[in-house]
Amino acid sequence: MSDDTFPAKSETRSGFRHFASITTRWADNDVYRHVNNSVYNGWIDTAIADYLVKEGVIDVSKSPVIGFVIENFCQFRGPVSYPDVVEGGVRVVHIGKTSTRYEVGIFKEGIDEAVAVGYLVHVFVDRATQRPQPIPDDIRAALTKISV
Amino acid sequence: MSDDTFPAKSETRSGFRHFASITTRWADNDVYRHVNNSVYNGWIDTAIADYLVKEGVIDVSKSPVIGFVIENFCQFRGPVSYPDVVEGGVRVVHIGKTSTRYEVGIFKEGIDEAVAVGYLVHVFVDRATQRPQPIPDDIRAALTKISV
Amino acid sequence: MSDDTFPAKSETRSGFRHFASITTRWADNDVYRHVNNSVYNGWIDTAIADYLVKEGVIDVSKSPVIGFVIENFCQFRGPVSYPDVVEGGVRVVHIGKTSTRYEVGIFKEGIDEAVAVGYLVHVFVDRATQRPQPIPDDIRAALTKISV
Amino acid sequence: MSDDTFPAKSETRSGFRHFASITTRWADNDVYRHVNNSVYNGWIDTAIADYLVKEGVIDVSKSPVIGFVIENFCQFRGPVSYPDVVEGGVRVVHIGKTSTRYEVGIFKEGIDEAVAVGYLVHVFVDRATQRPQPIPDDIRAALTKISV
Repeated sequence: MSDDTFPAKSETRSGFRHFASITTRWADNDVYRHVNNSVYNGWIDTAIADYLVKEGVIDVSKSPVIGFVIENFCQFRGPVSYPDVVEGGVRVVHIGKTSTRYEVGIFKEGIDEAVAVGYLVHVFVDRATQRPQPIPDDIRAALTKISV
Repeated sequence: MSDDTFPAKSETRSGFRHFASITTRWADNDVYRHVNNSVYNGWIDTAIADYLVKEGVIDVSKSPVIGFVIENFCQFRGPVSYPDVVEGGVRVVHIGKTSTRYEVGIFKEGIDEAVAVGYLVHVFVDRATQRPQPIPDDIRAALTKISV
Repeated sequence: MSDDTFPAKSETRSGFRHFASITTRWADNDVYRHVNNSVYNGWIDTAIADYLVKEGVIDVSKSPVIGFVIENFCQFRGPVSYPDVVEGGVRVVHIGKTSTRYEVGIFKEGIDEAVAVGYLVHVFVDRATQRPQPIPDDIRAALTKISV
Repeated sequence: MSDDTFPAKSETRSGFRHFASITTRWADNDVYRHVNNSVYNGWIDTAIADYLVKEGVIDVSKSPVIGFVIENFCQFRGPVSYPDVVEGGVRVVHIGKTSTRYEVGIFKEGIDEAVAVGYLVHVFVDRATQRPQPIPDDIRAALTKISV
Protein backbone atom coordinates (compact mmCIF):
# COMPACT_ATOMS: atom_id res chain seq x y z
CA MET A 1 0.00 0.00 0.00
CA SER A 2 2.95 2.29 0.54
CA ASP A 3 6.68 2.60 0.12
CA ASP A 4 7.18 3.59 3.73
CA THR A 5 5.76 0.98 6.10
CA PHE A 6 6.40 -2.25 7.92
CA PRO A 7 5.81 -5.25 5.66
CA ALA A 8 2.12 -6.13 5.99
CA LYS A 9 2.39 -9.86 6.64
CA SER A 10 -1.07 -11.40 6.52
CA GLU A 11 -2.47 -12.06 9.99
CA THR A 12 -5.48 -14.27 10.62
CA ARG A 13 -7.49 -15.19 13.70
CA SER A 14 -5.65 -18.47 14.22
CA GLY A 15 -2.51 -16.53 15.10
CA PHE A 16 -4.02 -15.08 18.27
CA ARG A 17 -4.89 -16.70 21.59
CA HIS A 18 -7.44 -14.50 23.39
CA PHE A 19 -10.25 -12.46 21.87
CA ALA A 20 -12.06 -9.46 23.30
CA SER A 21 -15.21 -8.05 21.70
CA ILE A 22 -15.18 -4.27 21.22
CA THR A 23 -18.11 -2.12 20.11
CA THR A 24 -17.30 1.00 18.10
CA ARG A 25 -18.79 4.37 19.06
CA TRP A 26 -20.19 7.20 16.99
CA ALA A 27 -17.42 9.54 18.07
CA ASP A 28 -14.69 7.03 17.11
CA ASN A 29 -15.16 8.07 13.50
CA ASP A 30 -13.29 11.14 12.39
CA VAL A 31 -14.04 13.57 9.58
CA TYR A 32 -12.98 11.04 6.97
CA ARG A 33 -15.59 8.59 8.37
CA HIS A 34 -13.13 6.02 9.60
CA VAL A 35 -12.23 5.26 13.16
CA ASN A 36 -9.40 7.59 14.17
CA ASN A 37 -5.99 5.93 14.40
CA SER A 38 -5.50 6.61 18.11
CA VAL A 39 -8.73 4.79 18.95
CA TYR A 40 -7.14 1.53 17.78
CA ASN A 41 -4.31 1.95 20.28
CA GLY A 42 -6.97 2.19 22.97
CA TRP A 43 -8.56 -1.02 21.69
CA ILE A 44 -5.19 -2.78 21.79
CA ASP A 45 -4.75 -1.65 25.39
CA THR A 46 -8.27 -2.81 26.22
CA ALA A 47 -7.92 -6.25 24.60
CA ILE A 48 -4.75 -6.89 26.61
CA ALA A 49 -6.33 -5.68 29.86
CA ASP A 50 -9.32 -7.89 29.10
CA TYR A 51 -7.06 -10.93 29.12
CA LEU A 52 -5.19 -9.98 32.30
CA VAL A 53 -8.40 -9.11 34.16
CA LYS A 54 -10.09 -12.37 33.12
CA GLU A 55 -7.02 -14.30 34.26
CA GLY A 56 -7.35 -12.55 37.61
CA VAL A 57 -3.76 -11.30 37.63
CA ILE A 58 -4.34 -7.57 37.87
CA ASP A 59 -6.31 -5.71 40.47
CA VAL A 60 -6.40 -2.07 39.40
CA SER A 61 -6.65 -0.73 42.93
CA LYS A 62 -4.42 -3.13 44.84
CA SER A 63 -1.76 -4.93 42.78
CA PRO A 64 1.64 -3.85 44.16
CA VAL A 65 3.19 -4.27 40.70
CA ILE A 66 1.45 -2.64 37.73
CA GLY A 67 2.05 -2.57 33.99
CA PHE A 68 3.05 0.73 32.40
CA VAL A 69 2.90 1.02 28.63
CA ILE A 70 6.27 2.06 27.23
CA GLU A 71 5.65 1.47 23.51
CA ASN A 72 2.64 1.11 21.30
CA PHE A 73 2.28 0.62 17.57
CA CYS A 74 -0.47 -0.01 15.07
CA GLN A 75 -0.52 -0.70 11.35
CA PHE A 76 -3.79 -0.06 9.54
CA ARG A 77 -4.67 -2.33 6.63
CA GLY A 78 -8.32 -1.62 6.01
CA PRO A 79 -11.03 0.71 7.19
CA VAL A 80 -13.14 0.25 10.30
CA SER A 81 -16.08 2.56 10.87
CA TYR A 82 -18.83 2.93 13.39
CA PRO A 83 -21.13 0.90 13.71
CA ASP A 84 -18.73 -2.03 13.13
CA VAL A 85 -18.18 -4.44 15.99
CA VAL A 86 -14.60 -5.70 16.17
CA GLU A 87 -12.59 -8.24 18.08
CA GLY A 88 -9.11 -7.73 19.46
CA GLY A 89 -7.03 -10.91 19.30
CA VAL A 90 -4.08 -11.06 21.70
CA ARG A 91 -0.85 -13.04 21.78
CA VAL A 92 2.42 -12.59 23.69
CA VAL A 93 5.62 -12.57 21.62
CA HIS A 94 8.25 -11.78 24.22
CA ILE A 95 8.51 -12.20 27.98
CA GLY A 96 11.57 -10.54 29.48
CA LYS A 97 12.70 -9.98 33.06
CA THR A 98 10.65 -6.83 33.69
CA SER A 99 8.75 -6.30 30.46
CA THR A 100 6.61 -8.11 27.93
CA ARG A 101 5.49 -7.53 24.36
CA TYR A 102 1.97 -8.29 23.17
CA GLU A 103 0.73 -8.34 19.59
CA VAL A 104 -2.91 -7.62 18.86
CA GLY A 105 -4.91 -8.14 15.69
CA ILE A 106 -8.12 -6.22 15.10
CA PHE A 107 -10.76 -8.27 13.28
CA LYS A 108 -14.07 -7.35 11.75
CA GLU A 109 -17.02 -9.70 12.21
CA GLY A 110 -16.94 -12.65 9.84
CA ILE A 111 -13.58 -11.76 8.31
CA ASP A 112 -10.55 -13.92 9.05
CA GLU A 113 -7.88 -11.43 8.03
CA ALA A 114 -6.90 -8.67 10.44
CA VAL A 115 -7.77 -5.09 9.42
CA ALA A 116 -5.13 -3.77 11.79
CA VAL A 117 -2.20 -5.27 13.66
CA GLY A 118 -0.32 -3.66 16.50
CA TYR A 119 1.82 -4.24 19.50
CA LEU A 120 2.24 -2.88 22.99
CA VAL A 121 5.07 -3.22 25.51
CA HIS A 122 4.40 -3.28 29.25
CA VAL A 123 7.11 -2.71 31.78
CA PHE A 124 6.10 -3.83 35.25
CA VAL A 125 6.80 -1.31 37.98
CA ASP A 126 6.30 -0.96 41.69
CA ARG A 127 3.09 1.01 42.22
CA ALA A 128 4.68 3.33 44.77
CA THR A 129 8.22 3.87 43.47
CA GLN A 130 7.41 3.30 39.78
CA ARG A 131 10.73 1.47 39.40
CA PRO A 132 10.86 -1.66 37.17
CA GLN A 133 10.24 -4.94 38.95
CA PRO A 134 10.52 -8.57 37.89
CA ILE A 135 7.26 -9.73 36.33
CA PRO A 136 5.24 -11.32 39.18
CA ASP A 137 4.85 -15.10 38.92
CA ASP A 138 1.08 -15.10 38.38
CA ILE A 139 1.32 -12.54 35.59
CA ARG A 140 4.24 -14.45 34.02
CA ALA A 141 2.17 -17.64 34.06
CA ALA A 142 -0.75 -15.86 32.39
CA LEU A 143 1.54 -14.34 29.74
CA THR A 144 3.10 -17.73 29.05
CA LYS A 145 -0.33 -19.26 28.38
CA ILE A 146 -0.85 -17.02 25.34
CA SER A 147 2.77 -16.87 24.27
CA VAL A 148 3.60 -17.95 20.71
CA MET B 1 14.20 1.10 31.06
CA SER B 2 13.45 -2.29 29.57
CA ASP B 3 14.94 -5.22 27.71
CA ASP B 4 12.25 -5.13 25.05
CA THR B 5 12.06 -1.71 23.41
CA PHE B 6 13.41 0.51 20.70
CA PRO B 7 16.61 2.22 21.82
CA ALA B 8 15.58 5.44 23.55
CA LYS B 9 17.88 7.88 21.79
CA SER B 10 17.68 11.25 23.51
CA GLU B 11 15.49 13.71 21.62
CA THR B 12 15.46 17.42 22.31
CA ARG B 13 13.46 20.37 21.02
CA SER B 14 16.12 21.38 18.50
CA GLY B 15 15.44 18.21 16.53
CA PHE B 16 11.93 19.28 15.59
CA ARG B 17 10.68 21.95 13.19
CA HIS B 18 7.07 22.82 14.10
CA PHE B 19 5.52 22.97 17.56
CA ALA B 20 1.86 22.68 18.53
CA SER B 21 0.65 23.47 22.04
CA ILE B 22 -1.66 20.83 23.52
CA THR B 23 -3.61 21.09 26.77
CA THR B 24 -4.22 17.90 28.70
CA ARG B 25 -7.71 17.01 29.93
CA TRP B 26 -8.94 15.49 33.17
CA ALA B 27 -10.14 12.36 31.39
CA ASP B 28 -6.78 11.82 29.66
CA ASN B 29 -5.47 10.37 32.91
CA ASP B 30 -6.18 6.73 33.52
CA VAL B 31 -6.44 4.80 36.77
CA TYR B 32 -2.69 4.94 37.26
CA ARG B 33 -2.87 8.77 37.08
CA HIS B 34 -0.88 9.13 33.90
CA VAL B 35 -2.18 10.09 30.51
CA ASN B 36 -3.32 6.90 28.76
CA ASN B 37 -1.00 5.69 26.02
CA SER B 38 -3.54 6.05 23.19
CA VAL B 39 -4.04 9.72 24.01
CA TYR B 40 -0.46 10.41 22.89
CA ASN B 41 -1.19 8.93 19.47
CA GLY B 42 -4.02 11.44 19.20
CA TRP B 43 -1.63 14.24 20.14
CA ILE B 44 0.83 13.10 17.47
CA ASP B 45 -1.98 13.15 14.91
CA THR B 46 -3.05 16.59 16.10
CA ALA B 47 0.44 18.10 16.02
CA ILE B 48 0.90 16.95 12.42
CA ALA B 49 -2.53 18.23 11.38
CA ASP B 50 -1.71 21.53 13.08
CA TYR B 51 1.26 21.96 10.77
CA LEU B 52 -0.60 21.01 7.59
CA VAL B 53 -3.59 23.22 8.44
CA LYS B 54 -1.35 26.22 9.27
CA GLU B 55 0.48 25.71 5.96
CA GLY B 56 -2.90 25.79 4.25
CA VAL B 57 -2.38 22.52 2.43
CA ILE B 58 -5.34 20.54 3.74
CA ASP B 59 -8.99 21.47 3.60
CA VAL B 60 -10.88 18.82 5.55
CA SER B 61 -14.04 19.18 3.52
CA LYS B 62 -12.68 19.80 0.03
CA SER B 63 -9.16 18.51 -0.63
CA PRO B 64 -9.42 15.87 -3.39
CA VAL B 65 -6.43 14.02 -1.94
CA ILE B 66 -6.42 13.26 1.79
CA GLY B 67 -3.96 11.66 4.18
CA PHE B 68 -4.88 8.32 5.75
CA VAL B 69 -2.84 7.09 8.68
CA ILE B 70 -1.40 3.66 7.96
CA GLU B 71 1.01 3.35 10.87
CA ASN B 72 1.46 4.99 14.23
CA PHE B 73 3.93 4.42 17.04
CA CYS B 74 4.83 5.97 20.35
CA GLN B 75 7.55 5.34 22.87
CA PHE B 76 6.96 6.62 26.40
CA ARG B 77 9.96 7.84 28.38
CA GLY B 78 8.45 9.70 31.26
CA PRO B 79 5.07 10.41 32.77
CA VAL B 80 2.67 13.12 31.63
CA SER B 81 -0.41 13.81 33.72
CA TYR B 82 -3.26 16.25 33.65
CA PRO B 83 -2.95 19.27 34.22
CA ASP B 84 0.35 19.33 32.29
CA VAL B 85 0.49 21.42 29.12
CA VAL B 86 2.64 19.81 26.44
CA GLU B 87 4.01 20.67 23.03
CA GLY B 88 4.15 18.33 20.07
CA GLY B 89 7.25 18.93 17.95
CA VAL B 90 7.03 17.73 14.34
CA ARG B 91 9.60 16.80 11.69
CA VAL B 92 9.39 14.85 8.45
CA VAL B 93 11.87 11.99 8.03
CA HIS B 94 10.76 10.45 4.76
CA ILE B 95 8.87 11.68 1.72
CA GLY B 96 7.98 8.94 -0.75
CA LYS B 97 5.86 8.88 -3.87
CA THR B 98 2.50 8.43 -2.15
CA SER B 99 3.36 8.41 1.56
CA THR B 100 5.34 10.30 4.16
CA ARG B 101 6.66 9.62 7.63
CA TYR B 102 6.57 12.19 10.42
CA GLU B 103 8.29 11.97 13.78
CA VAL B 104 6.83 13.79 16.74
CA GLY B 105 8.35 14.56 20.13
CA ILE B 106 6.16 15.35 23.11
CA PHE B 107 7.66 17.96 25.41
CA LYS B 108 6.68 19.19 28.85
CA GLU B 109 6.89 22.90 29.59
CA GLY B 110 10.39 24.06 30.38
CA ILE B 111 12.02 20.70 29.70
CA ASP B 112 14.23 20.22 26.66
CA GLU B 113 14.15 16.44 26.54
CA ALA B 114 11.14 14.69 25.02
CA VAL B 115 8.96 12.65 27.39
CA ALA B 116 7.63 10.66 24.44
CA VAL B 117 8.66 10.19 20.83
CA GLY B 118 6.54 8.69 18.10
CA TYR B 119 5.94 8.51 14.41
CA LEU B 120 3.03 8.39 12.03
CA VAL B 121 2.83 7.43 8.35
CA HIS B 122 0.34 9.07 6.01
CA VAL B 123 -0.56 7.59 2.68
CA PHE B 124 -2.27 10.07 0.41
CA VAL B 125 -5.42 8.78 -1.25
CA ASP B 126 -8.11 10.01 -3.55
CA ARG B 127 -11.04 11.12 -1.39
CA ALA B 128 -13.59 9.26 -3.51
CA THR B 129 -11.82 6.05 -4.55
CA GLN B 130 -9.49 5.89 -1.53
CA ARG B 131 -6.69 4.66 -3.83
CA PRO B 132 -3.12 5.95 -3.22
CA GLN B 133 -2.16 9.07 -5.17
CA PRO B 134 1.10 10.93 -5.66
CA ILE B 135 1.60 13.48 -2.88
CA PRO B 136 0.17 16.77 -4.21
CA ASP B 137 2.78 19.44 -4.94
CA ASP B 138 1.66 21.88 -2.25
CA ILE B 139 1.69 19.19 0.44
CA ARG B 140 5.09 17.94 -0.78
CA ALA B 141 6.46 21.47 -0.50
CA ALA B 142 5.12 21.81 3.04
CA LEU B 143 6.58 18.44 4.03
CA THR B 144 9.93 19.37 2.55
CA LYS B 145 10.08 22.54 4.67
CA ILE B 146 10.19 20.51 7.90
CA SER B 147 12.14 17.59 6.51
CA VAL B 148 15.37 16.65 8.28
CA MET C 1 -27.87 11.37 46.92
CA SER C 2 -27.61 15.12 46.88
CA ASP C 3 -29.45 18.32 47.59
CA ASP C 4 -28.74 19.70 44.17
CA THR C 5 -29.95 17.36 41.44
CA PHE C 6 -32.86 16.32 39.31
CA PRO C 7 -35.13 13.90 41.18
CA ALA C 8 -33.75 10.43 40.54
CA LYS C 9 -36.93 8.64 39.51
CA SER C 10 -36.26 4.93 39.25
CA GLU C 11 -35.83 3.80 35.64
CA THR C 12 -35.91 0.17 34.59
CA ARG C 13 -35.36 -1.67 31.32
CA SER C 14 -39.08 -1.89 30.54
CA GLY C 15 -39.21 1.87 30.06
CA PHE C 16 -36.96 1.76 26.99
CA ARG C 17 -37.61 0.51 23.46
CA HIS C 18 -34.25 -0.16 21.78
CA PHE C 19 -31.09 -1.51 23.36
CA ALA C 20 -27.51 -1.19 22.17
CA SER C 21 -24.67 -3.18 23.72
CA ILE C 22 -21.60 -1.11 24.61
CA THR C 23 -18.25 -2.45 25.78
CA THR C 24 -16.25 -0.29 28.16
CA ARG C 25 -12.59 0.46 27.50
CA TRP C 26 -9.59 0.63 29.79
CA ALA C 27 -9.15 4.35 29.14
CA ASP C 28 -12.81 5.11 29.97
CA ASN C 29 -11.89 4.90 33.64
CA ASP C 30 -10.48 8.02 35.20
CA VAL C 31 -8.21 8.42 38.20
CA TYR C 32 -11.06 7.61 40.57
CA ARG C 33 -11.53 4.26 38.78
CA HIS C 34 -14.97 4.99 37.41
CA VAL C 35 -15.89 5.72 33.85
CA ASN C 36 -15.50 9.47 33.26
CA ASN C 37 -18.77 11.38 33.06
CA SER C 38 -18.27 12.57 29.48
CA VAL C 39 -17.89 9.00 28.26
CA TYR C 40 -21.56 8.36 29.15
CA ASN C 41 -22.65 11.20 26.88
CA GLY C 42 -20.80 9.45 24.08
CA TRP C 43 -22.61 6.22 24.91
CA ILE C 44 -25.96 8.02 24.80
CA ASP C 45 -25.06 9.41 21.40
CA THR C 46 -24.00 5.97 20.22
CA ALA C 47 -27.12 4.17 21.48
CA ILE C 48 -29.32 6.65 19.59
CA ALA C 49 -27.24 6.39 16.42
CA ASP C 50 -27.40 2.61 16.74
CA TYR C 51 -31.18 2.78 16.53
CA LEU C 52 -31.27 5.18 13.59
CA VAL C 53 -28.63 3.24 11.65
CA LYS C 54 -30.42 -0.08 12.22
CA GLU C 55 -33.69 1.50 11.06
CA GLY C 56 -31.84 2.57 7.92
CA VAL C 57 -32.84 6.22 8.24
CA ILE C 58 -29.42 7.83 8.38
CA ASP C 59 -26.62 7.53 5.90
CA VAL C 60 -23.64 9.35 7.36
CA SER C 61 -22.19 10.28 4.01
CA LYS C 62 -25.32 11.01 1.96
CA SER C 63 -28.42 11.98 3.98
CA PRO C 64 -29.36 15.52 2.91
CA VAL C 65 -30.79 16.19 6.38
CA ILE C 66 -28.64 15.33 9.39
CA GLY C 67 -29.14 15.45 13.16
CA PHE C 68 -27.08 17.93 15.15
CA VAL C 69 -26.98 17.56 18.92
CA ILE C 70 -28.11 20.76 20.63
CA GLU C 71 -28.47 19.50 24.20
CA ASN C 72 -27.19 16.58 26.18
CA PHE C 73 -27.62 15.61 29.81
CA CYS C 74 -26.71 12.71 32.06
CA GLN C 75 -27.49 11.88 35.66
CA PHE C 76 -25.22 9.33 37.34
CA ARG C 77 -26.77 7.02 39.93
CA GLY C 78 -24.18 4.33 40.41
CA PRO C 79 -20.67 3.53 39.33
CA VAL C 80 -19.67 1.88 36.07
CA SER C 81 -16.08 0.79 35.58
CA TYR C 82 -14.08 -1.00 32.96
CA PRO C 83 -14.45 -3.99 32.28
CA ASP C 84 -18.24 -3.67 32.68
CA VAL C 85 -20.37 -4.26 29.60
CA VAL C 86 -23.41 -1.97 29.52
CA GLU C 87 -26.52 -1.51 27.45
CA GLY C 88 -27.97 1.79 26.35
CA GLY C 89 -31.77 1.72 26.27
CA VAL C 90 -33.41 4.33 24.04
CA ARG C 91 -36.88 5.91 23.91
CA VAL C 92 -38.22 9.05 22.27
CA VAL C 93 -40.12 11.47 24.51
CA HIS C 94 -40.80 14.37 22.17
CA ILE C 95 -41.07 14.76 18.41
CA GLY C 96 -41.35 18.36 17.28
CA LYS C 97 -41.31 20.00 13.87
CA THR C 98 -37.52 20.15 13.47
CA SER C 99 -36.21 18.51 16.63
CA THR C 100 -36.64 15.46 18.81
CA ARG C 101 -35.73 14.46 22.33
CA TYR C 102 -34.46 11.01 23.25
CA GLU C 103 -33.99 9.57 26.72
CA VAL C 104 -31.40 6.90 27.31
CA GLY C 105 -30.89 4.61 30.27
CA ILE C 106 -27.54 2.94 30.88
CA PHE C 107 -27.86 -0.55 32.31
CA LYS C 108 -25.31 -2.95 33.74
CA GLU C 109 -25.55 -6.62 32.85
CA GLY C 110 -28.16 -8.47 34.87
CA ILE C 111 -29.42 -5.37 36.68
CA ASP C 112 -32.87 -3.97 35.89
CA GLU C 113 -32.37 -0.51 37.34
CA ALA C 114 -30.50 2.09 35.30
CA VAL C 115 -27.13 3.23 36.65
CA ALA C 116 -27.41 6.42 34.62
CA VAL C 117 -30.18 8.21 32.77
CA GLY C 118 -29.73 10.97 30.25
CA TYR C 119 -31.25 12.74 27.32
CA LEU C 120 -30.15 14.22 24.03
CA VAL C 121 -31.88 16.64 21.67
CA HIS C 122 -31.34 16.47 17.92
CA VAL C 123 -32.25 19.30 15.63
CA PHE C 124 -32.40 18.23 12.01
CA VAL C 125 -30.55 20.49 9.62
CA ASP C 126 -29.75 20.69 5.95
CA ARG C 127 -26.29 19.19 5.45
CA ALA C 128 -25.13 22.08 3.29
CA THR C 129 -26.74 25.16 4.83
CA GLN C 130 -26.98 23.75 8.37
CA ARG C 131 -30.39 25.44 8.76
CA PRO C 132 -33.17 23.55 10.63
CA GLN C 133 -35.44 21.41 8.45
CA PRO C 134 -38.64 19.52 9.12
CA ILE C 135 -37.85 16.02 10.34
CA PRO C 136 -37.84 13.79 7.22
CA ASP C 137 -40.74 11.33 7.03
CA ASP C 138 -38.66 8.18 7.34
CA ILE C 139 -36.86 9.49 10.41
CA ARG C 140 -40.16 10.66 11.91
CA ALA C 141 -41.61 7.18 11.42
CA ALA C 142 -38.60 5.58 13.10
CA LEU C 143 -38.81 8.01 16.02
CA THR C 144 -42.51 7.34 16.42
CA LYS C 145 -41.89 3.60 16.71
CA ILE C 146 -39.93 4.07 19.95
CA SER C 147 -41.91 7.03 21.24
CA VAL C 148 -43.47 6.72 24.70
CA MET D 1 -33.08 27.18 17.19
CA SER D 2 -35.54 24.49 18.22
CA ASP D 3 -38.90 23.91 19.81
CA ASP D 4 -37.48 21.46 22.29
CA THR D 5 -34.69 23.00 24.33
CA PHE D 6 -33.79 25.05 27.34
CA PRO D 7 -34.13 28.76 26.61
CA ALA D 8 -30.79 29.89 25.19
CA LYS D 9 -30.18 32.96 27.36
CA SER D 10 -27.19 34.84 26.01
CA GLU D 11 -24.04 34.20 28.03
CA THR D 12 -20.92 36.31 27.74
CA ARG D 13 -17.45 36.14 29.25
CA SER D 14 -18.25 38.61 32.01
CA GLY D 15 -20.60 36.08 33.56
CA PHE D 16 -17.80 33.67 34.42
CA ARG D 17 -15.03 33.88 37.02
CA HIS D 18 -12.24 31.48 36.00
CA PHE D 19 -11.04 30.66 32.50
CA ALA D 20 -9.15 27.61 31.30
CA SER D 21 -7.62 27.42 27.82
CA ILE D 22 -8.40 24.22 25.93
CA THR D 23 -6.90 23.13 22.61
CA THR D 24 -9.07 21.06 20.31
CA ARG D 25 -7.77 17.83 18.79
CA TRP D 26 -8.13 16.34 15.34
CA ALA D 27 -10.13 13.41 16.66
CA ASP D 28 -12.58 15.69 18.52
CA ASN D 29 -14.31 16.32 15.20
CA ASP D 30 -16.87 13.78 14.17
CA VAL D 31 -18.12 12.85 10.71
CA TYR D 32 -20.10 16.07 10.46
CA ARG D 33 -16.86 18.04 11.05
CA HIS D 34 -17.86 19.52 14.36
CA VAL D 35 -16.55 18.60 17.76
CA ASN D 36 -18.63 15.71 19.07
CA ASN D 37 -21.09 16.65 21.81
CA SER D 38 -19.54 14.44 24.49
CA VAL D 39 -16.19 16.15 24.06
CA TYR D 40 -17.69 19.36 25.46
CA ASN D 41 -18.70 17.55 28.65
CA GLY D 42 -15.07 16.58 29.02
CA TRP D 43 -14.04 20.22 28.55
CA ILE D 44 -16.51 21.31 31.22
CA ASP D 45 -15.05 18.74 33.59
CA THR D 46 -11.54 19.89 32.74
CA ALA D 47 -12.27 23.61 33.18
CA ILE D 48 -13.68 22.93 36.66
CA ALA D 49 -10.76 20.71 37.62
CA ASP D 50 -8.41 23.40 36.35
CA TYR D 51 -9.86 25.83 38.87
CA LEU D 52 -9.77 23.41 41.80
CA VAL D 53 -6.22 22.28 41.02
CA LYS D 54 -4.95 25.86 40.68
CA GLU D 55 -6.59 26.73 44.00
CA GLY D 56 -4.72 23.80 45.51
CA VAL D 57 -7.82 22.20 46.99
CA ILE D 58 -7.70 18.82 45.30
CA ASP D 59 -4.89 16.32 45.31
CA VAL D 60 -5.89 13.52 42.97
CA SER D 61 -3.92 10.88 44.82
CA LYS D 62 -4.38 11.96 48.44
CA SER D 63 -7.48 14.06 49.15
CA PRO D 64 -9.65 12.07 51.60
CA VAL D 65 -12.78 13.67 50.14
CA ILE D 66 -13.20 13.67 46.35
CA GLY D 67 -15.77 15.09 43.94
CA PHE D 68 -17.92 12.65 41.98
CA VAL D 69 -19.91 13.97 39.04
CA ILE D 70 -23.60 13.18 39.46
CA GLU D 71 -25.05 15.33 36.69
CA ASN D 72 -23.74 16.97 33.57
CA PHE D 73 -25.44 19.01 30.88
CA CYS D 74 -24.47 20.97 27.81
CA GLN D 75 -26.39 23.14 25.38
CA PHE D 76 -24.79 23.76 21.99
CA ARG D 77 -25.38 27.13 20.34
CA GLY D 78 -22.81 27.24 17.60
CA PRO D 79 -20.23 24.99 16.00
CA VAL D 80 -16.72 24.41 17.27
CA SER D 81 -14.28 22.49 15.09
CA TYR D 82 -10.66 21.49 15.27
CA PRO D 83 -8.34 23.49 15.06
CA ASP D 84 -10.25 26.03 17.18
CA VAL D 85 -8.80 26.94 20.56
CA VAL D 86 -11.50 27.51 23.18
CA GLU D 87 -11.77 28.74 26.72
CA GLY D 88 -13.93 27.24 29.43
CA GLY D 89 -15.31 29.90 31.79
CA VAL D 90 -16.38 28.63 35.21
CA ARG D 91 -18.74 29.95 37.88
CA VAL D 92 -20.43 28.32 40.87
CA VAL D 93 -24.19 28.73 41.13
CA HIS D 94 -25.04 26.59 44.15
CA ILE D 95 -23.11 25.38 47.17
CA GLY D 96 -25.02 22.86 49.27
CA LYS D 97 -24.04 20.73 52.22
CA THR D 98 -22.44 17.90 50.25
CA SER D 99 -22.74 19.01 46.65
CA THR D 100 -22.13 21.98 44.39
CA ARG D 101 -23.25 23.09 40.96
CA TYR D 102 -20.92 24.74 38.45
CA GLU D 103 -21.86 26.42 35.19
CA VAL D 104 -19.37 26.56 32.37
CA GLY D 105 -19.41 28.61 29.19
CA ILE D 106 -17.33 27.57 26.20
CA PHE D 107 -15.91 30.52 24.28
CA LYS D 108 -14.15 30.76 20.96
CA GLU D 109 -11.16 33.08 20.63
CA GLY D 110 -12.13 36.70 20.19
CA ILE D 111 -15.86 36.09 20.58
CA ASP D 112 -17.68 37.33 23.68
CA GLU D 113 -20.76 35.14 23.37
CA ALA D 114 -20.59 31.54 24.50
CA VAL D 115 -20.90 28.87 21.81
CA ALA D 116 -21.97 26.35 24.44
CA VAL D 117 -23.14 26.51 28.03
CA GLY D 118 -23.35 23.64 30.44
CA TYR D 119 -23.36 22.64 34.05
CA LEU D 120 -21.96 19.90 36.23
CA VAL D 121 -22.84 18.80 39.75
CA HIS D 122 -20.22 17.39 42.10
CA VAL D 123 -21.14 15.46 45.20
CA PHE D 124 -18.25 15.17 47.61
CA VAL D 125 -17.63 11.67 48.93
CA ASP D 126 -15.23 9.88 51.17
CA ARG D 127 -12.56 8.32 48.97
CA ALA D 128 -12.77 4.96 50.73
CA THR D 129 -16.47 4.54 51.52
CA GLN D 130 -17.75 6.69 48.64
CA ARG D 131 -20.47 8.06 50.96
CA PRO D 132 -21.38 11.77 50.71
CA GLN D 133 -19.45 14.08 53.02
CA PRO D 134 -19.78 17.75 53.93
CA ILE D 135 -17.80 19.87 51.48
CA PRO D 136 -14.36 20.37 53.09
CA ASP D 137 -13.67 23.94 54.25
CA ASP D 138 -10.89 24.66 51.78
CA ILE D 139 -12.96 23.49 48.83
CA ARG D 140 -15.96 25.46 50.12
CA ALA D 141 -13.82 28.59 50.31
CA ALA D 142 -12.58 28.08 46.75
CA LEU D 143 -16.13 27.52 45.48
CA THR D 144 -17.33 30.64 47.25
CA LYS D 145 -14.66 32.75 45.51
CA ILE D 146 -16.22 32.06 42.09
CA SER D 147 -19.82 31.89 43.27
CA VAL D 148 -22.32 34.23 41.59
